[in-house]
Amino acid sequence: MTSFSPDDLSLGASPQALRALIESRRAVRRFLPEAVPDAVIRDCLELAVLAPNSCNLQPWSFQVVRDPALLARLHPVCMSQNAAKAPLIIAVLARPDTWKQACANMVEYWPEPEVPGRIRHFYAKTAPFQYNQGPLGLLGLFKRQLVRLLALRKPLMRKPNSHADMRLWAVKSTALAAENLMLAFQSHGYATCPMEGFDEVRLRKVLDIPRQAIPIMLLAVGRQGEKGVYNPRLRFPLEQHVTWL
Amino acid sequence: MTSFSPDDLSLGASPQALRALIESRRAVRRFLPEAVPDAVIRDCLELAVLAPNSCNLQPWSFQVVRDPALLARLHPVCMSQNAAKAPLIIAVLARPDTWKQACANMVEYWPEPEVPGRIRHFYAKTAPFQYNQGPLGLLGLFKRQLVRLLALRKPLMRKPNSHADMRLWAVKSTALAAENLMLAFQSHGYATCPMEGFDEVRLRKVLDIPRQAIPIMLLAVGRQGEKGVYNPRLRFPLEQHVTWL
Repeated sequence: MTSFSPDDLSLGASPQALRALIESRRAVRRFLPEAVPDAVIRDCLELAVLAPNSCNLQPWSFQVVRDPALLARLHPVCMSQNAAKAPLIIAVLARPDTWKQACANMVEYWPEPEVPGRIRHFYAKTAPFQYNQGPLGLLGLFKRQLVRLLALRKPLMRKPNSHADMRLWAVKSTALAAENLMLAFQSHGYATCPMEGFDEVRLRKVLDIPRQAIPIMLLAVGRQGEKGVYNPRLRFPLEQHVTWL
Repeated sequence: MTSFSPDDLSLGASPQALRALIESRRAVRRFLPEAVPDAVIRDCLELAVLAPNSCNLQPWSFQVVRDPALLARLHPVCMSQNAAKAPLIIAVLARPDTWKQACANMVEYWPEPEVPGRIRHFYAKTAPFQYNQGPLGLLGLFKRQLVRLLALRKPLMRKPNSHADMRLWAVKSTALAAENLMLAFQSHGYATCPMEGFDEVRLRKVLDIPRQAIPIMLLAVGRQGEKGVYNPRLRFPLEQHVTWL
């Protein structure tokens, strides 16, 4: 749904327009029943996956729940919070388990007639060495020791070298995409609520989530309802978070 | 640096303008030497921390490196990659360790004259119970078992109940903020490169990073240089990542 001409690309959002968009996004907890059109959902997902991500392995997936019966089953899973009565819930999943397929995809979908040699090599050799942790994470354990030794001589990337590292790695890229997703809905006039309050065990059953996938949030989406925002905005002073060097 | 009137808030970025902004963001690996003004950096950090985050505990911090001598020391830490020659590098840190102070801050900085009772209770009782994992994570271990039992009867939030959960939790919110940060720089006409390729042990020494903080990326920032983008954009078909339910 690219509805602007290439000329518009130079426009983009101004700092003022982006600030207004970001400031207008709040966690909204009451929605109107009005459905979100599929074309809008698709447009927002397209913007989500344009987020930067580790080695372009795109370690994310999304379950778009619009079916009223399924939404009704999700409501108690979210401990019956109001936000979970939204007409649309998107389960945002981090995928530490899809890097191997993604390496193959990178070559298959390469957007130029010839895949450059350095790209072939990276996705055939470098990335698999970097991301494969082996059964029980034993290869990762070995790599951790190897890197520790080699890094005595020169700087080296030391992670991800465990399954825990892989989870952090995938959650990071997926959260970058999730922020794009929320801003995209906001730009279309739809409010969102990123929910972390859910029963993960029940969620996995209801949505049949793959064992290795990590649900990082359930994103409630819809038109903002009355008294949709519960609290005033509060951010601690920037000075607490920022060191200037 | 709020440079627009409240009336502009209704404007925000249109879906087209946001798409153009997001599409124009690429990982740029060659920068011009031109410095990034502090006012721009501050504006972008302000937008970063408006990201949604877990229980508003704002588990992030940023080290803004502009000093040429320090930048020169960071270059080898980033395995001497071109992107690390940028005039500005921001170390984006996830903070699983600051929730206790943040609970106190929520009451101290509450933006209304009276702090509502439910807010006081949440940050004095609920949040500490939820996030405190105790020494060696033993309290988390106990909570995991308790939740498992109680959840036999009704849906319950089961995480974060380990130090590993806390790390995922903090990385998630921090990455949401990092995406805002990159889009903000983009809106100001500055390019970025989120670098994960760095030697974490050396980085911690050079920037004196607190032990529990997790550097999720080093963000290189500057004006885009010639041949700054290395590869064509490639995203796998949306159908691979999305399930419609």
